[in-house]
Amino acid sequence: MSYTTLILSSQAATYAELLAPYDLPDLTLVTAENTAEAHPFISTCEIIFGAPGLIREILPQAAQLQWVQSTWAGVEALLKPELRQDYLLTNVKGIFGDLMAEYVIGYLLLHERHMLAHYAAQQAGRWHHVWPGMLRGKTMGILGVGSIGAAVAETAKHFGMRTYGYTRSSMDCAFVDQYFHGSLLEFVAEVDYLVCTLPHTAANEHLIDRTVLQAMKPTAVLINGGRGSAIDEAALLIALQQNEIALAVLDVFQREPLPPEHPFWAAPNLLMTSHTAAPTLPELIVPIFAENYRRFVNKQPLNYQVEFGRGY
Amino acid sequence: MSYTTLILSSQAATYAELLAPYDLPDLTLVTAENTAEAHPFISTCEIIFGAPGLIREILPQAAQLQWVQSTWAGVEALLKPELRQDYLLTNVKGIFGDLMAEYVIGYLLLHERHMLAHYAAQQAGRWHHVWPGMLRGKTMGILGVGSIGAAVAETAKHFGMRTYGYTRSSMDCAFVDQYFHGSLLEFVAEVDYLVCTLPHTAANEHLIDRTVLQAMKPTAVLINGGRGSAIDEAALLIALQQNEIALAVLDVFQREPLPPEHPFWAAPNLLMTSHTAAPTLPELIVPIFAENYRRFVNKQPLNYQVEFGRGY
Repeated sequence: MSYTTLILSSQAATYAELLAPYDLPDLTLVTAENTAEAHPFISTCEIIFGAPGLIREILPQAAQLQWVQSTWAGVEALLKPELRQDYLLTNVKGIFGDLMAEYVIGYLLLHERHMLAHYAAQQAGRWHHVWPGMLRGKTMGILGVGSIGAAVAETAKHFGMRTYGYTRSSMDCAFVDQYFHGSLLEFVAEVDYLVCTLPHTAANEHLIDRTVLQAMKPTAVLINGGRGSAIDEAALLIALQQNEIALAVLDVFQREPLPPEHPFWAAPNLLMTSHTAAPTLPELIVPIFAENYRRFVNKQPLNYQVEFGRGY
Repeated sequence: MSYTTLILSSQAATYAELLAPYDLPDLTLVTAENTAEAHPFISTCEIIFGAPGLIREILPQAAQLQWVQSTWAGVEALLKPELRQDYLLTNVKGIFGDLMAEYVIGYLLLHERHMLAHYAAQQAGRWHHVWPGMLRGKTMGILGVGSIGAAVAETAKHFGMRTYGYTRSSMDCAFVDQYFHGSLLEFVAEVDYLVCTLPHTAANEHLIDRTVLQAMKPTAVLINGGRGSAIDEAALLIALQQNEIALAVLDVFQREPLPPEHPFWAAPNLLMTSHTAAPTLPELIVPIFAENYRRFVNKQPLNYQVEFGRGY
């Protein structure tokens, strides 16, 4: 008895190297950095460990497939209704929260501390004396309090903020001072910082639209570290151009890389990063695969199983 | 019985306004934004509440002076040996730690997240895909673990760092993993981030010199939020030009504002702010004065009393 496991990732060699010391039982490991390299193994592998976008392309031919372990938290590439759903799908959780908290706090401090203005003044040889703002005492609203949102909330509490959480139903995070389930407009009107950590789902699409942006404080900062689809990008562009909010920080977009012709490149009050807020660092993901592999071999329930219907 | 209290500060009106609701007993309040305005009150005031640099100028004429409450943590302007020391001097503590922690973490995240590179790429319309570094797992060394350094250490622990403290003797901060008292060179060689929160004293002058900078990791970040005198600026300039450390972040300098001809303006690997890391925010300082005033009237020991000989 042996399980053929295909690692399908541009970092496949790194994953294989990090996996070796685990000495997993009954494992036959094959690696591919792209779908062409994967071709010889597709029809025989029982397990695929890799990037959802690559896995989707070979999914129809994987006749023996029993389990997919995604290296990403976002698995929407595998959730399209036309794709098969006759296998176990697991993603990765828990490891992205610390990274996202560092991203969110970093950009909030960039804003409060006027870091770009200080840097510009320094380049011009000018002593720029301006008082900073503080995180302490501010209110952070978190849209979608899953494991990532909970880590952001914990860090916000460390810095003395009030934390509000907007969720459909769950309210089990000890670091959220107050939960909101009703009007999104009332929720966003209260917050100084609106942090979106929502996954991509049909219900979340364009949740942050023109009316939501208009309900926000003109001094508010919006940070999107979830998925680009949660924001109506045309509506955000108007809000930024008309100073309806102070700043947007976006790590995710409806199309990535952001196309050269996209109006965001020339938008004011906007800072952009390249879907790197909470990256897939192999040394953090390999232990999750190893644990799930042992569970798979022993017929135990897998960690972080995705429900195809729910989408996360 | 009444105590004439002179508020001497460019923000005197703000302080007076914030103080009014406290309704302090036996208080005769006068305000001055500069020494010229203070002139009519100098010879009769028993208490001065204000900025050390301004107070120093009127100190010889304050014949009735019993107590000075500084609005600043740094009171070196009042500690010169030629100045009188026949009064109680108190400064402010506890309130600057949170601000300093936000400053330090903000600039460390600017560095780890490549924020300036992302911003430059955005200006150029270029999708800049680069993995960030993390605070988690790094080692922070703190030079001078007083109340400000302790607050920085607490935040470093929140972000999963190891914390080393370098002090003469004290070792009572629960957020410092390990204390060093011996070789400064061995201490700095171990750390990824070296944070200086030292006050100005003769013993601290040019503590960070050429040998210390050469002992640091080439990937290390130096942050000075204490006093400019702790760093040999000529030695730091060489270290930055020769990439002996990755980055210096300076909020304080030997001369402030930094003179136009100073070589720091053109130095690489340097970010500068304008002595605003932990500012004197009146709403945080007035409660300290009010509490000390009640103690003064009741002949109780004052909080945050400075020992002239020790210098803090």
